[in-house]
Amino acid sequence: MLIEPGKLLQNINKPADLRNVDSTELYKVCEELRQYIIDNVSVFGGHFGASLGVVELTVALHHVFNTPYDQLVWDVGHQAYGHKILTGRRERFHTNRRYEGLSGFPRRAESEYDTFGVGHSSTSISAALGMAIASKLKGEHERQHIAVIGDGAMTAGLAFEGMNHAGVSDTNLLIVLNDNCMSIDPNVGALKDYLTDITTSQIYNKFKDDVWKLFGKIEKLAPGAREAVQKIDHLIKSTILNHSNLFEALNLRYFGPVDGHDINHLVSVMEDLKNIPGPKLLHCITTKGKGYLPAEKNQTKWHAPGKFDKITGEIKKKVYDTPQPPKYQQVFGNTIVELAKMNEKIVGITPAMPSGSSMNIMMKALPERAFDVGIAEQHAVTLSAGLATQGMIPFCNIYSSFMQRAYDQVIHDVCVQNLHVIFCLDRAGFAGADGATHHGAYDLAFMRCVPNMVVSAPMNEAELRNLMYTAQLPREGAFTIRYPRGQGVMPEWQTPLEEVKVGTGRKLKDGKDIALLTIGHVGNYAREVAKKLEIKGIDAAHYDMRFVKPLDEDLLHEVFNKFDKVITIEDGCVQGGFGSAILEFMADYQYKNTVVRRLGIPDEVIEQGEQIELQHYAGFSPEGIEKAVMEMVNIPEFVTHKVSQ
Amino acid sequence: MLIEPGKLLQNINKPADLRNVDSTELYKVCEELRQYIIDNVSVFGGHFGASLGVVELTVALHHVFNTPYDQLVWDVGHQAYGHKILTGRRERFHTNRRYEGLSGFPRRAESEYDTFGVGHSSTSISAALGMAIASKLKGEHERQHIAVIGDGAMTAGLAFEGMNHAGVSDTNLLIVLNDNCMSIDPNVGALKDYLTDITTSQIYNKFKDDVWKLFGKIEKLAPGAREAVQKIDHLIKSTILNHSNLFEALNLRYFGPVDGHDINHLVSVMEDLKNIPGPKLLHCITTKGKGYLPAEKNQTKWHAPGKFDKITGEIKKKVYDTPQPPKYQQVFGNTIVELAKMNEKIVGITPAMPSGSSMNIMMKALPERAFDVGIAEQHAVTLSAGLATQGMIPFCNIYSSFMQRAYDQVIHDVCVQNLHVIFCLDRAGFAGADGATHHGAYDLAFMRCVPNMVVSAPMNEAELRNLMYTAQLPREGAFTIRYPRGQGVMPEWQTPLEEVKVGTGRKLKDGKDIALLTIGHVGNYAREVAKKLEIKGIDAAHYDMRFVKPLDEDLLHEVFNKFDKVITIEDGCVQGGFGSAILEFMADYQYKNTVVRRLGIPDEVIEQGEQIELQHYAGFSPEGIEKAVMEMVNIPEFVTHKVSQ
Repeated sequence: MLIEPGKLLQNINKPADLRNVDSTELYKVCEELRQYIIDNVSVFGGHFGASLGVVELTVALHHVFNTPYDQLVWDVGHQAYGHKILTGRRERFHTNRRYEGLSGFPRRAESEYDTFGVGHSSTSISAALGMAIASKLKGEHERQHIAVIGDGAMTAGLAFEGMNHAGVSDTNLLIVLNDNCMSIDPNVGALKDYLTDITTSQIYNKFKDDVWKLFGKIEKLAPGAREAVQKIDHLIKSTILNHSNLFEALNLRYFGPVDGHDINHLVSVMEDLKNIPGPKLLHCITTKGKGYLPAEKNQTKWHAPGKFDKITGEIKKKVYDTPQPPKYQQVFGNTIVELAKMNEKIVGITPAMPSGSSMNIMMKALPERAFDVGIAEQHAVTLSAGLATQGMIPFCNIYSSFMQRAYDQVIHDVCVQNLHVIFCLDRAGFAGADGATHHGAYDLAFMRCVPNMVVSAPMNEAELRNLMYTAQLPREGAFTIRYPRGQGVMPEWQTPLEEVKVGTGRKLKDGKDIALLTIGHVGNYAREVAKKLEIKGIDAAHYDMRFVKPLDEDLLHEVFNKFDKVITIEDGCVQGGFGSAILEFMADYQYKNTVVRRLGIPDEVIEQGEQIELQHYAGFSPEGIEKAVMEMVNIPEFVTHKVSQ
Repeated sequence: MLIEPGKLLQNINKPADLRNVDSTELYKVCEELRQYIIDNVSVFGGHFGASLGVVELTVALHHVFNTPYDQLVWDVGHQAYGHKILTGRRERFHTNRRYEGLSGFPRRAESEYDTFGVGHSSTSISAALGMAIASKLKGEHERQHIAVIGDGAMTAGLAFEGMNHAGVSDTNLLIVLNDNCMSIDPNVGALKDYLTDITTSQIYNKFKDDVWKLFGKIEKLAPGAREAVQKIDHLIKSTILNHSNLFEALNLRYFGPVDGHDINHLVSVMEDLKNIPGPKLLHCITTKGKGYLPAEKNQTKWHAPGKFDKITGEIKKKVYDTPQPPKYQQVFGNTIVELAKMNEKIVGITPAMPSGSSMNIMMKALPERAFDVGIAEQHAVTLSAGLATQGMIPFCNIYSSFMQRAYDQVIHDVCVQNLHVIFCLDRAGFAGADGATHHGAYDLAFMRCVPNMVVSAPMNEAELRNLMYTAQLPREGAFTIRYPRGQGVMPEWQTPLEEVKVGTGRKLKDGKDIALLTIGHVGNYAREVAKKLEIKGIDAAHYDMRFVKPLDEDLLHEVFNKFDKVITIEDGCVQGGFGSAILEFMADYQYKNTVVRRLGIPDEVIEQGEQIELQHYAGFSPEGIEKAVMEMVNIPEFVTHKVSQ
């Protein structure tokens, strides 16, 4: 089903076409673009509220600025659907977020209008500043560079670092602050309060209150004094908002706040700003989900609602005849509450992902012990370390790929000090439709090389619960539990909590021809394959290793004494990951007679797709595992029996 | 040589003793403490200027607050010498930064007064906030939590993330901003300018100017009006500095600026602040090196001067009879200028380490093309990515352990986009006296698992130059060059620049009994050992692999076809590092008959010491390598010849 664009939109195949639209008709382009996004997402799914919120901004930016010569960087990028539709990708837009289709985020390889690939937040100021400095060095003094960043993304330290440098750079940099008071969940923190203060002129009002307190009613003053106070009142109004401005403090000229849905005003403001050299910030107030009432009303739910009926606003859910397994996220969210009720030392930390991680369950049940710290992964980890020094037991839940942003804090603040902090790495392995920036591919490699660190992954819901239970028992050091996005395998997941001995795996099936060593949820694939192979007369053993660090050495001695063929399987990079840990064990104990093949994410950037599509591409879907086993048992040199022992 | 403390200081063995000192005598304690630090550092070396700058702060904090119950977190920690001396470590202070001695930074295992281990900057606010939230949850409402952070450290995003959370937390958190306008080098960025503005009251003055412009001379006004304007002028003075304050914008109550060397005033201000609940910030102006004139005058040089003559201020340098090899840092600093003069696309980026990395040579030679971005590693990398999108070729020089702080930016902004950015990782491997937080132990593991990344390490100065030359030739993707702190091996280092074929190693010595595979500077140890072993009749081959990624597969096929014993040697973690990459190669090509032993940094936290001491401990000093070779060639099972082929 292809979506029909409106009359104006169908003739806009590039921003240059948009620049030919009469400015009195721009509001119609906005209407049509908004409708096109609603039509598309309702049928094909995807991010929703963010793109609706920036329809006018998108149209204004491409109308006013000379893209792609002028360089436009979208922060995070899930709000860039309108941008994609206006920059020559309308007819492919139905492939958005699909395997081999358009990326759900700007991507340099996709279009010259995508100046900088994004996905994670808060990179746009630094990136655009880099571009602006390059232009300056090249003598391209007219070239403009625009970073569009949300108030949520503004809370991350990287954005602050970028502003601190931008403020002393003499470059054509415009930061558009898209202030909708939201991340995926409502934005938090002092900055958010401050932006609200600016917007509602509370700072001005507070100061004015002070003036009133000083003088009492102005009417009581002598005429000359009254005039003076009135004049000064105007002065305060016109200048204090600048002088009192956080961005002005960082030497960015501040403009706004302006209504981010008034297309004509936006165009006129941007035309003016184009002629003002130097670093500057335009503060736009927008509404996430603008123009689609259900999305305006429940912004978190409509951040990425999936497919929906655009007339009724009903979000389409698959209906099943039988009970379905829960998502791992739900298991996490419920189990942490269960544990926290038993152990008062437990606290929960999420950097801006309360609903995504299900930490919101704890935030509701035990509000004083669960913290959303905003988009601030570094702070989330160091805060957890601080809490741990006082004997609290933090469960710090961070998406695997976002944990890359707090790596130093993991090493420097937690592991070097051997503090008891639990890292729950959500979205580990292929993330699916979010694509390359969001795959949690590297965590096993980058976590296991750090001392004072346990690295584990559950094969199913019961194991996740047991690992969480185990992690909070008295111990020293960091404890990582990584699990994938989405559904598990156990409809009856509310199993009793049991301690798992740290560093022990499980032999799930004995065998004689080959051993499959798995970590995490791919164990379910291996189990399925092992069963299937029995019919073909191949007797594969299956070990769920459960811990990448420390490894279960007893189990591995059994494996390497018995098998001359081993396949390791992980939903993570093959360079330095679980399989490599197994090779290190082999080398350390001088096992020489076993051939090991490692299945996992290959050493390349892999774009979006369904998780199973990507796993299939990478060669560790059930079919991939079966194929690898067949190759190993059938190829002659692999059949050679062990030569010594 | 033991240093004699002054009369008061010799009786202060813990902060409680300090609290018994009459407040009129505190200035004497400060004098004695300052003298003790000067005496010590002049004889034993160490960090200098930072600790002198906080003598009064240190005395005031321990005098006013009930440490260790009240919790004091030092940011970075190289300024904590006074703190260590006052908290029971005076008599061990001469072991500072030595192997098995006191750490040069606060360290939890060392003292209950060291509430949080530090070394990297900007962690203190988050850590202290974690402690404060824990106290709140425990109902310890009187307990105080103090983070002492420099203006340099304040530029890092983590500090901002911490403030953004602190501002909405209802906790007893006091942030002491120790503003001396310096990192190791002069501080940079908009925030620095802003702090100077506050300090010099420029913001107030600017506003006052506007008032004057509006009214003309106040004398011209009618008497009532004059009075009104004067009143409002006072109001502006007393409140605008608050309302216009960046920290107040983040909901931190701002106090200051105060003279950080006026002990009596500091004590009285802190006594007051103790009784003000909620998050707050005290802005103290200090002078780095205070009280020692040469250090006040040249603050960068005296950050960590080494030993010196305290009377003349002459810094003691070792004198050599023969030409010495340069530091790798000097080779980097000179070579980047050489390259930049040939290739105008080259730019240099350093996050606050211009003198440490020698980027200051380029900043002087080509100021418009070399950037110190402040303590902001994340920004440094994303800025580099932005520059690379425009065809610039950034050399982004970051200490290996600090690169942990920009890991996501390496993956998300550079490698996912396959951008041509060169990472020069300085201080790779054991860092020496700076200890656990500063060792560049993990970079080979965490960099090589990322796609679109070359990972290399030079064995000497000529190789560093050639790798730098190679890295800037037209290509795609990231290129990492890691090298150690300190001296190389080539007094005649100014060799002609030659391209190195990416992914090729060098066979430096043929042999037949065993192969030594090295990466980076430890190749020099292996070379030395191989020579020495010849005398003992052991013929060891030596391969300098030069690249961890991509590996030189031709060379490795030669190695594994020829040798049944291999030792890999790296100044990096053995889990997931260079040696593991070699094991992966073996597994991928099914080499079954070679025993591989990996030498490198073991999986534990290793404290400070001379580099060679630590390498010896880890087992890869020349002696360690020799021992490993002897074990491998002598132990019977290793002597077994290959069973197949």
